[in-house]
Amino acid sequence: MNRFWSKTASNINPYVPGEQPHDKKYIKLNTNENPYPPSPKVFEAIRRETSADVRLYPDPDAVGLKNAIARFYEVDCDEVFVGNGSDEVLAFCFPTFFNPGDTVSFPDITYSFFPVYSRLFGVKYKTVRLTDDFFIPFDDFTSSARGILVPNPNAPTGLAVGTDMIERLLRRFPDTLVIVDEAYVDFGACSSVPLIKKYDNLLVVQTFSKSRSLAGLRVGYAIGNNGLIEALERVKNSFNSYTIDRIAQKAAEAAIDDKEYFYKTLKRVVNTREYTAQKLNGLGFTVIPSKSNFLFVSHKDIKAEEIFIKLRQEGILVRHFKMLRIENWLRITIGTDDDMAALIEKLKAMMI
Amino acid sequence: MNRFWSKTASNINPYVPGEQPHDKKYIKLNTNENPYPPSPKVFEAIRRETSADVRLYPDPDAVGLKNAIARFYEVDCDEVFVGNGSDEVLAFCFPTFFNPGDTVSFPDITYSFFPVYSRLFGVKYKTVRLTDDFFIPFDDFTSSARGILVPNPNAPTGLAVGTDMIERLLRRFPDTLVIVDEAYVDFGACSSVPLIKKYDNLLVVQTFSKSRSLAGLRVGYAIGNNGLIEALERVKNSFNSYTIDRIAQKAAEAAIDDKEYFYKTLKRVVNTREYTAQKLNGLGFTVIPSKSNFLFVSHKDIKAEEIFIKLRQEGILVRHFKMLRIENWLRITIGTDDDMAALIEKLKAMMI
Repeated sequence: MNRFWSKTASNINPYVPGEQPHDKKYIKLNTNENPYPPSPKVFEAIRRETSADVRLYPDPDAVGLKNAIARFYEVDCDEVFVGNGSDEVLAFCFPTFFNPGDTVSFPDITYSFFPVYSRLFGVKYKTVRLTDDFFIPFDDFTSSARGILVPNPNAPTGLAVGTDMIERLLRRFPDTLVIVDEAYVDFGACSSVPLIKKYDNLLVVQTFSKSRSLAGLRVGYAIGNNGLIEALERVKNSFNSYTIDRIAQKAAEAAIDDKEYFYKTLKRVVNTREYTAQKLNGLGFTVIPSKSNFLFVSHKDIKAEEIFIKLRQEGILVRHFKMLRIENWLRITIGTDDDMAALIEKLKAMMI
Repeated sequence: MNRFWSKTASNINPYVPGEQPHDKKYIKLNTNENPYPPSPKVFEAIRRETSADVRLYPDPDAVGLKNAIARFYEVDCDEVFVGNGSDEVLAFCFPTFFNPGDTVSFPDITYSFFPVYSRLFGVKYKTVRLTDDFFIPFDDFTSSARGILVPNPNAPTGLAVGTDMIERLLRRFPDTLVIVDEAYVDFGACSSVPLIKKYDNLLVVQTFSKSRSLAGLRVGYAIGNNGLIEALERVKNSFNSYTIDRIAQKAAEAAIDDKEYFYKTLKRVVNTREYTAQKLNGLGFTVIPSKSNFLFVSHKDIKAEEIFIKLRQEGILVRHFKMLRIENWLRITIGTDDDMAALIEKLKAMMI
């Protein structure tokens, strides 16, 4: 710290992303990336965009990409906001919808970036305590919050709720903005996007990083009433006119247009997840029923941290959160069948 | 506006970037892009990075890119911060170094994003009035500001000062952070980067968008004392872990490593600038001596807005700011020799 740091810079507690090892020798099951590459059409789009035109600024409004997203979800273009990954989209939500000193509410066990944003933007937060089997106690949310953040499925548990639960929340608190983070929704949960036509207090945030295999290119989006989107645009355009580069815009557009590849890849990941869950169960793990591309697991005899360390030594990275209530759990991303077979083998060896 | 907008969302006044026409029929001299493509090595790097690995997150610390920048400037890696264009880097500076209610100071005629950031982050600003021939009156800066922002060369005038002026500022106000925005420095001005070793109150911001022809890929950076850089990292990591995608990181790395191509391209732009300035002079324009890749010009008989509109009709885009004191000036980006010949022809026809 030095005399030039603002109070904010001193007081924040930055997010620590999962390890991105440089040596590449690991089976990476730690950051919920898709084990399959994006659609071949994405590579075609990247190649087409790799031209002398990279000297020119991108479209600041990313109209082509917004239209593609709007087509997919059958919403209007002005109901779509795009950003540099859903993390940036969520970050923009804070100054756009919450004033310093306002309170937002989210589960105590959830995406650990939420409290980080809150501190950065001087927003207070109140958590609702997940039940012991990790369900979100929807009845515990109160109208005192200016915003409610609910990941569906929740992370790192993978548990999803039906849109009826979201709709009930929207009806109970019509003056509270409900932000549903659907980063993992495509792997088996139900999206709340159709509800945006009926509720102006709903913003749904999604990403190209997981189900569309584009974590490396940084594209996320929000869908909501055009009044909400307009506010997000105002904040984004007061921060950085061009948040998504030319190549990423075209790549994401191609990714969302290729529905066939999308559903095929999803199915593979879901099948591997179900198979892996069964195998882990057989090895004495408790496995939370997941609607995401990861499994949240705990072993009856061996401590999570011990498994985490041993797997790392064996060349497999998973995620362990040193946090109250979940310190004995691991979040394991679904990789290819081969990745998961290797994982099961290593775990079996540990059990002997 | 609706009931969910924060005070910030309601009060800000977003930046309006120069037009990015979709039809592509214009000669674009309006957003200071480089008329030449980036180094061939950039395209090689992009092609190499276009692989299944786009499914994986980028390096959140962009170590390869930071090292390349550090090598070029002969500074240490922890003296370099990278972001999604220099606009994002400048945006991060506000919450990192200034508290809401603090005052920052910058010229009254300068990059028009500065007041936009100030409003977004609740920072007050005090401008110093450029002389009538557009020089920055350095003596008018006072110690009451927590930060001073000086573009060198200034925009949209293109006028540069020597680093002696910057150094004097750093010595006069050792407890004020001086941010020098060097977006255009490579086209003929002197960089203050070497001063960072001596002054811990200096942060120099640069970009790959202009001299390195990568506006489309969004990479900017800041160089300064490691205490300043650490604070920027904290804020960035509380906002978005991965601001620069995989392809952009590698492209920028290749761009900064190819010094030969860089200096060759710069020379071409500078030669065209000097030639164009002479021609415009001959047509009755006042031309401010520019150290950037644009010219700031005013005609003795014809109003700037009229020229702007007529050029647009003729397929040439230049930038006109409807702002007090410069409403009779145009900012014209230096294009290829052919672009500028076309411009001169159209202007000549107007003069008849």
